[in-house]
Amino acid sequence: MKIDELQTPALLVEQSVLQANLDTMAAAHPGARLRPHVKAHKCTELARRQDAVGHHGFTCATIREVEGMAAAGLGTDLLLANEVLDARRLGVLVAAGHRVTVAVDSAETVAAAADGGVREVVVDVNVGLPRCGCTPAEAGRIADLARGRGLAVRGAMGYEGHLMMAQPAAEQARLTEEAMALLLAAHADVGGELVSAGGTGTYAVNTWATEIQAGSYALMDTAYAELGLPFGHALSLLATVLSTGTAGETPYAVADVGLKSLGMDHGNPTIADGQVWFCSDEHTTFGAAELSGAELPTVGQRVRVLPAHVDPTVALHEAMWLVDGEEVLQRWPVDLRGW
Amino acid sequence: MKIDELQTPALLVEQSVLQANLDTMAAAHPGARLRPHVKAHKCTELARRQDAVGHHGFTCATIREVEGMAAAGLGTDLLLANEVLDARRLGVLVAAGHRVTVAVDSAETVAAAADGGVREVVVDVNVGLPRCGCTPAEAGRIADLARGRGLAVRGAMGYEGHLMMAQPAAEQARLTEEAMALLLAAHADVGGELVSAGGTGTYAVNTWATEIQAGSYALMDTAYAELGLPFGHALSLLATVLSTGTAGETPYAVADVGLKSLGMDHGNPTIADGQVWFCSDEHTTFGAAELSGAELPTVGQRVRVLPAHVDPTVALHEAMWLVDGEEVLQRWPVDLRGW
Repeated sequence: MKIDELQTPALLVEQSVLQANLDTMAAAHPGARLRPHVKAHKCTELARRQDAVGHHGFTCATIREVEGMAAAGLGTDLLLANEVLDARRLGVLVAAGHRVTVAVDSAETVAAAADGGVREVVVDVNVGLPRCGCTPAEAGRIADLARGRGLAVRGAMGYEGHLMMAQPAAEQARLTEEAMALLLAAHADVGGELVSAGGTGTYAVNTWATEIQAGSYALMDTAYAELGLPFGHALSLLATVLSTGTAGETPYAVADVGLKSLGMDHGNPTIADGQVWFCSDEHTTFGAAELSGAELPTVGQRVRVLPAHVDPTVALHEAMWLVDGEEVLQRWPVDLRGW
Repeated sequence: MKIDELQTPALLVEQSVLQANLDTMAAAHPGARLRPHVKAHKCTELARRQDAVGHHGFTCATIREVEGMAAAGLGTDLLLANEVLDARRLGVLVAAGHRVTVAVDSAETVAAAADGGVREVVVDVNVGLPRCGCTPAEAGRIADLARGRGLAVRGAMGYEGHLMMAQPAAEQARLTEEAMALLLAAHADVGGELVSAGGTGTYAVNTWATEIQAGSYALMDTAYAELGLPFGHALSLLATVLSTGTAGETPYAVADVGLKSLGMDHGNPTIADGQVWFCSDEHTTFGAAELSGAELPTVGQRVRVLPAHVDPTVALHEAMWLVDGEEVLQRWPVDLRGW
């Protein structure tokens, strides 16, 4: 099948770019040095490609992601890098033989893990991002609480999410070292073999973590692209121009993608040679880019749209299409959506 | 079941508020005067309630919405108020006995409708919003093209979306009259019995359309609420506090809702007595509202979150829960998602 035969909107994953991204990261962080984060793509078929290049442990953000990975046979070592107050669904997976580890940062989340039948935890430590995670000073106490409930403590986790876009690189490295010093101090109190941290933005500078939780590198975001990372845009959204018109003297075109097919928290999407005016539920109105000299597309023509944020974009789609240029290779269900 | 037993994030629909919204709108626009837009909720169970108060024709934004409504037995008179370049799936529904009408605004979309097996169209007219729709001057020609292809032309449609938030009310009424004058002039050239327009923001002032396409009134948006419309917030997102902490001296809490459970195009959600700091994929960090005097919730407590935009929020969820206070009444699948 050719991509022209796909109904739009359609998420496209360019196989060569994806594979290059996976290979580049696997060279930098081989095997267990990377724990790919599946929240970035929510797709077990894509995770299978990450497994194929040597990463057999994965990071998840939701219970559903853990369940879906286990169901897909990718449950060798799943880390739910998030707190839960009801871990019973995780306990079912553990009882079925999957290795599931959950983050804890409080007495309540330790109790939930133990009560739910989970056997292994990591202590989540706040290293500067005001989100989940105990203070570094509390980490040892949380680990003791967990051991007191019969849980194995595999180590410490701390996501330096506030530093992903820090620039210049030397400053990012310095700030990452400071954040990881907090995590290493906590880890000294916690024990265990894991120091889990990092993301696509800091994968190259975070040399303190034993494993990096990067996810965005596989499909890549437009925001991350500004950092000059060696990963290409593997994901685009194929759209069809439904209508054209003029506002005053200014011509515009309307594509059939919008708020229900694009994650909008990072703003409007990008269209090559186009200037996006606004997005509605199922439409994006765009004009010609200034000075581009390009003609606006006509009704029925296809355009490629780059979402401003990949993660929430993927969560709006049932499937993505693996393509090689104009050729459609496979349909990959986005099977890890929901909670 | 009580709502405390629901896993979060969970979309809640308060039955009494929903029913009051449906009753209020049905009193203002009874029967065929309203063609409820299902894009706002993407839920056939909710559409069934709209049908029950007397509206048997519906507006859809996607082919999937049309298919889902037909499959649910709500296919008496479905208007796809959007252009399509491949209408074959609509033709299948028509052949099966459902009444499906599609919007056209160009020779290409007329050809697609005819080639796809659709038999009825409306001519979509641009009345000031730079999106789909031909110019008023072109409308008669498009109608002739359609008739020339054997299509019945049911009338004209023109959405004054740019006026939904116009204020004050008298100015909105004046601008709506201007926009509808364009639509009525086009309708005079087009013919047919329908003049389809309007939305929740203009439902009270648009006295020119023969039918109003409102959708948001059922669940209501925080933006629309600022207009003082007589519709209440029926929809909220139930969240659980996963973690708490302090940034410097300032305490915050973290709820388990974020970019993958909230439409973000209108900005951050609202939390009662809270001030949202930022949203991540699966988290919202918030502090106490200034001067609220309220305590921040503790780990494990539930909070209600109001999304800034209902339509794209609903599209991120598999289901919503109909509730009466603390009691869960029904699970309603969000069964019209996708394309």
